[in-house]
Amino acid sequence: MENSDETNNPPTPLGDLEMILQRKSVRNYTGRKVSREQLEALVKAGMAAPSAGDKRPWAFIAMDDRDTLDKLAGELPYAKFLKNAPAAIAVCGDLPKAFEGEEQPYWVQDCSAASQNILLAAEIMGLGAVWTGVYPLRERVDAVKSILDLPGWIIPLNIIPIGYPAGVAKPKDKWQPENLHWQRW
Amino acid sequence: MENSDETNNPPTPLGDLEMILQRKSVRNYTGRKVSREQLEALVKAGMAAPSAGDKRPWAFIAMDDRDTLDKLAGELPYAKFLKNAPAAIAVCGDLPKAFEGEEQPYWVQDCSAASQNILLAAEIMGLGAVWTGVYPLRERVDAVKSILDLPGWIIPLNIIPIGYPAGVAKPKDKWQPENLHWQRW
Repeated sequence: MENSDETNNPPTPLGDLEMILQRKSVRNYTGRKVSREQLEALVKAGMAAPSAGDKRPWAFIAMDDRDTLDKLAGELPYAKFLKNAPAAIAVCGDLPKAFEGEEQPYWVQDCSAASQNILLAAEIMGLGAVWTGVYPLRERVDAVKSILDLPGWIIPLNIIPIGYPAGVAKPKDKWQPENLHWQRW
Repeated sequence: MENSDETNNPPTPLGDLEMILQRKSVRNYTGRKVSREQLEALVKAGMAAPSAGDKRPWAFIAMDDRDTLDKLAGELPYAKFLKNAPAAIAVCGDLPKAFEGEEQPYWVQDCSAASQNILLAAEIMGLGAVWTGVYPLRERVDAVKSILDLPGWIIPLNIIPIGYPAGVAKPKDKWQPENLHWQRW
């Protein structure tokens, strides 16, 4: 551990956080296709997330098959717009790989970090995406497992529809200074 | 929903995903201080994450007080290196604000997405950071709640130590093509 003169250096500038601050949920897509290469790059970004004990307790189902996307749209009340999405990724937990906590394993946290990476990667790539929740709602989990032929140990956390944004979606300003506390509560 | 000629356009290039792929867990820090402005920018990135029902069920404790950081280092076995970190952020769930799932609310997913934003923002700003798990381990949750005076409804998900990296940390290549499935399992 160094304790050098660096302490007195001016801080690095804040850097370009715009990519993070500009990310928005996009639910309307043009008809333009998303390529397999793009989907693979999104999943690669997901796999770059940290995980408890580096267990990487995840599996990703990338979809661009119209029939599968339409079936999911029919079963998921809050993701009906999958009907108009050219692609989607299901981020799933792989239970036997998960680092075990006391009351529940860490896979939800790990897969959520991976999901956020995918949303940000989509923003960087000029795509639009949105996190639509599946787990822990039993009914949605069962529907997705059935449509995607998931084995018992694979639990879908969410479905992320992906496409080129139709229209201009604006990011919300969600900065709430009252939710930042200094040192303690 | 447009279904225009755009379908035939070449896809946008993959864009610069390096920021996501280069992120690494940093546990060694120089003595250089992290400013309040930097900590606030990190928390702002955290608050830009999506949340179920846009409930934003989170609270952030930013710390640069040596005594608090040392107390946390003393109580958290896997975060002893907080002793050498000039700052840290605790990402916490705010239970009454959380969107309710069936078996458990969504706050863990929402706060995990916010945490990943903070880790990526740190990377962009030239800082080093690492996710150290607190929830769901009861013992760790209780220790952090006590040191940070958290009320009953505020649950610490993790502690993220932050500083300037000492030495060169390399990102792991975690790409595992066998964890990517096409269309279904």
